[in-house]
Amino acid sequence: MKQITLLGATGSIGIQTLDVIRLHPDHFSVYALAFGKNIEKAFPLIKEFEPEVVVVQDHTVKQQVEGEFPTIRVLQGTGGMIAASTAEKVDVLVNAVMGSVGLPATMAAIEARKLIAIANKETLVTAGHLVMEAARKYQVDLLPVDSEHSAIFQSLNGEKNESVERLILTASGGSFRDKTREDLVGVTVDDALNHPNWSMGAKITIDSASMMNKGLEVIEAHWLFDIPYEQIDVILHRESVIHSMVEYKDKSVIAQLGTPDMKVPIQYALTYPDRLDLSMTKRLNLEEIATLHFQPMDYERFRCLKLAYQAGKEGGSMTTVLNAANEQAVELFLKGEISFLDIETLIEQALERHQTIRKPDLDTILTIDQETRQQVRSYLK
Amino acid sequence: MKQITLLGATGSIGIQTLDVIRLHPDHFSVYALAFGKNIEKAFPLIKEFEPEVVVVQDHTVKQQVEGEFPTIRVLQGTGGMIAASTAEKVDVLVNAVMGSVGLPATMAAIEARKLIAIANKETLVTAGHLVMEAARKYQVDLLPVDSEHSAIFQSLNGEKNESVERLILTASGGSFRDKTREDLVGVTVDDALNHPNWSMGAKITIDSASMMNKGLEVIEAHWLFDIPYEQIDVILHRESVIHSMVEYKDKSVIAQLGTPDMKVPIQYALTYPDRLDLSMTKRLNLEEIATLHFQPMDYERFRCLKLAYQAGKEGGSMTTVLNAANEQAVELFLKGEISFLDIETLIEQALERHQTIRKPDLDTILTIDQETRQQVRSYLK
Repeated sequence: MKQITLLGATGSIGIQTLDVIRLHPDHFSVYALAFGKNIEKAFPLIKEFEPEVVVVQDHTVKQQVEGEFPTIRVLQGTGGMIAASTAEKVDVLVNAVMGSVGLPATMAAIEARKLIAIANKETLVTAGHLVMEAARKYQVDLLPVDSEHSAIFQSLNGEKNESVERLILTASGGSFRDKTREDLVGVTVDDALNHPNWSMGAKITIDSASMMNKGLEVIEAHWLFDIPYEQIDVILHRESVIHSMVEYKDKSVIAQLGTPDMKVPIQYALTYPDRLDLSMTKRLNLEEIATLHFQPMDYERFRCLKLAYQAGKEGGSMTTVLNAANEQAVELFLKGEISFLDIETLIEQALERHQTIRKPDLDTILTIDQETRQQVRSYLK
Repeated sequence: MKQITLLGATGSIGIQTLDVIRLHPDHFSVYALAFGKNIEKAFPLIKEFEPEVVVVQDHTVKQQVEGEFPTIRVLQGTGGMIAASTAEKVDVLVNAVMGSVGLPATMAAIEARKLIAIANKETLVTAGHLVMEAARKYQVDLLPVDSEHSAIFQSLNGEKNESVERLILTASGGSFRDKTREDLVGVTVDDALNHPNWSMGAKITIDSASMMNKGLEVIEAHWLFDIPYEQIDVILHRESVIHSMVEYKDKSVIAQLGTPDMKVPIQYALTYPDRLDLSMTKRLNLEEIATLHFQPMDYERFRCLKLAYQAGKEGGSMTTVLNAANEQAVELFLKGEISFLDIETLIEQALERHQTIRKPDLDTILTIDQETRQQVRSYLK
């Protein structure tokens, strides 16, 4: 029986993590659930999964939860997430919060030698060197939940790192894949939120449309699998059936395929190295799909991806800036304050103005993160 | 340094095995080469690889080899193959002879606890229960060289057998994949030998055209991976890019992909669990290939595959009959004595007339094999 702390319980990955836990009551139980403010979604989950601990964003929500569930211990903020992630009873931290707010809890859980199922890619993008250094030091497994990274992780099963020639991440192309750059001028938030293959949260759906999601994934893959950027490629694959691949030195390519269902990588992270039934997930039917398409990635069309490679290769604090500028820009786009193409422009400006700091510590990273967001907002004035 | 005995050195797999050995003189050397009669091909190979032992088919060829290479020990026949496969110096037996003639050497090598790279699928089709029982008893690894089985073997890396939902073998469809059954009436030997994706020997190319090759592979997969026939599926995939797949209980599918080059599975069998560079092989370029196609298998169109499933499920000596009848029928077709569609008819007749013997021993198998060939020839009179 694995005791799980789930950060980001009311988000898309959080809800699906609970779907998986619900399927296997003999294997998993919930120690703690963390969410922000969404009590309408959270209350039924707290009732159903009966966690010992609940973590919320602020004091107001804390009081609401305490009023409804007087026997449950309620914590708040980053301190609360850290406490819930490092408690002795916890076996696995599923970190599915959005954005760099998930970083301190991950770092603390690594130091407490917890298994980490990481759906919070910003953690690795913004502080990959610190996270991986800590993971090595405390000998902690970081298990990817992202479908692409889970695919690579599964394709690396039983293999040695030195045998790897390159990682090949597949990209569906997002909601704007058939649009030219000219077409992108007038697109709306609703257009961007309409992803062809995957049902996900708003931020990641926008990131898919801008291809920044793939850029963040490239950086995440670099850190998770310890592979240079020169050996990480991206290929356009409309159907999202091949979730990603690994090419080996002998030209053999191993791939993981499936229907677009995040419960598969979520469950794999929870059961690794074993697998359990996943009856609610549709079986892949290649006969029915009939055709898979592949296209070279166009780095001029998808400038965010190019920026991500540049920031990744520069390294140091540059990826923190990339991530913070992107998070801020996407937020502004979702609020209707900037256009879709402004996202990449704002990110590019932020990258250009930043002086890279080599091996920044956690405090420096959090400071740069905040400063970058302010700067991006200031460009608008 | 692995010392290798190679049976079938002048065949397609044999030649490519030597290509791989040539690439890695620090890793592999040749202890023995076995071939039938083809001294034009064999002599330069003997000169180049300087084996300690050469095995040939009969006394005439033996004398020719001894005349040319007076310092080399030359053996002949099944006894010679067994001696060369079980010698103390040998680490790996690469069994790439065609047909059930490869069986006694494989059995003897297992008992001598040699690693077996098995390209001789008839061995498992005709005597899978004996081979696998011996492999388990002597704790010997059987490493597949067939591209489909190598793909499955690679896709099973690091996984547990109990996690497997099904094996999915891909089939290109062979040289007649776009023909109806009516179209098959008039096809010639030359038509059948024109395989769209793979360059292989004559027998296996005919087997590909009749889909019996896939049938033999299904039976081979059943034995190699200990999976019931109900959990082995075949899918038509024209491009032969995905070489085969494994679906797991969590609906995750792992696949191995690559260009159609037998050197990849051959080398993997020789280097497993490691991988080495394979510079002469073309890298898979999915951007260039652009499209992969999949179609359901039509078991009425490809009757040989249906017969193979039937024989496999019946088990016992029935697969020996399937294999022997097929070998004999293909030989007759290649000689121009029967038509292409006669192949399946002759096999079906042989299967119908056979009374299954449960768990036949090696002598019984060899007897049934010979009797079946005679019977198939007798149907023609």
